Amino acid sequence: MSITELQLLLADFAERRDWGPFHTPKNLAMALTGEAGELAAEFQWLEPGESDRVMDDPDKARAVRLEMADVFSYLLRLADVLDVDLEAALREKVAINEGRFPAARPVPDD
Amino acid sequence: MSITELQLLLADFAERRDWGPFHTPKNLAMALTGEAGELAAEFQWLEPGESDRVMDDPDKARAVRLEMADVFSYLLRLADVLDVDLEAALREKVAINEGRFPAARPVPDD
Amino acid sequence: MSITELQLLLADFAERRDWGPFHTPKNLAMALTGEAGELAAEFQWLEPGESDRVMDDPDKARAVRLEMADVFSYLLRLADVLDVDLEAALREKVAINEGRFPAARPVPDD
Amino acid sequence: MSITELQLLLADFAERRDWGPFHTPKNLAMALTGEAGELAAEFQWLEPGESDRVMDDPDKARAVRLEMADVFSYLLRLADVLDVDLEAALREKVAINEGRFPAARPVPDD
Repeated sequence: MSITELQLLLADFAERRDWGPFHTPKNLAMALTGEAGELAAEFQWLEPGESDRVMDDPDKARAVRLEMADVFSYLLRLADVLDVDLEAALREKVAINEGRFPAARPVPDD
Repeated sequence: MSITELQLLLADFAERRDWGPFHTPKNLAMALTGEAGELAAEFQWLEPGESDRVMDDPDKARAVRLEMADVFSYLLRLADVLDVDLEAALREKVAINEGRFPAARPVPDD
Repeated sequence: MSITELQLLLADFAERRDWGPFHTPKNLAMALTGEAGELAAEFQWLEPGESDRVMDDPDKARAVRLEMADVFSYLLRLADVLDVDLEAALREKVAINEGRFPAARPVPDD
Repeated sequence: MSITELQLLLADFAERRDWGPFHTPKNLAMALTGEAGELAAEFQWLEPGESDRVMDDPDKARAVRLEMADVFSYLLRLADVLDVDLEAALREKVAINEGRFPAARPVPDD
């Protein structure tokens, strides 16, 4: 499923619940910070090595996956209501960062 | 480009800069909260109506798009290092929410 | 109770639970973002007017108070472990902002 | 200076700039997440040991102090507009946590 299709899935989910008036860009951006904070909370007391093994515990892995889904869903909703092309925005940012952070190694020839 | 392809693009970008040791799940989750906070900052003083028109100003629209790209890029990096299928996680969460928040209107027959 | 006394209260609370090794500056800063996100979540779907009346509901008021306490406690812990004088830092920032944001009205004579 | 006096200082600062209409509880909570995110960003790529030494670099120390001041100032503004007694809220939360997290060691007799 493409990013656009995922956006439509969530737009439809919200629409059938009459959540449109709540899903202003401001509210969605605010909700995204809350979910990002909950995702961070899954990692906050872990040492770096423990953080690498967080998915070894099935309950913890599920919690992390669902928190990531929450972040993703608000980002997709925001992209939908603002009519932002997330892939294009990401490519634009990568191009900017190519200039800001020169690579230690060149892109290999294929 | 699929979500997986975007993950590979960012993984390659990080790899060519030797960022691997920094991109622990914990650090990426922390970086994601920072970017979510910067995205929220674009909206924090706006009234609901102003927030709807935020993309009318080209400079502001660009800032919002690039902040969204930053959030997306850390979410994709985290999905990559944790081997999480973002689309599957999103569908799992949507299925949970179908039960928690019954729709006011049924899914229409096609 | 002064800010310093509150810091000592929390340092003692952490010390008697052997939380010292977890309370690195990085972990405390990360925990603070999580609590800030939970505080924001109390307000995310409210209209501006509703947000003004949030304390009228005793249950909601208690939730907001306790989330604010969580944010405050991690800020105080961070100030303690980094040996930052929060009042001095705040005054330094206010002085900077006096220059950045000239007042519409002067400080009145007493 | 007491917490209440710091709140008055900031309330006066905001009032002389006509920021009252922007300082709704919702907006302040949102601004607080942004500042918490900027504070976290100071630590996001540091290893635990590096995070302990973050104040050794004067420029970095100043940045951390000022980000902490930003978080504190929005927390104080929010306490002011919601009429929340931060010290009382903190003590209430500590009392709750005394029950939730029994101490490994008792409070010593004086």
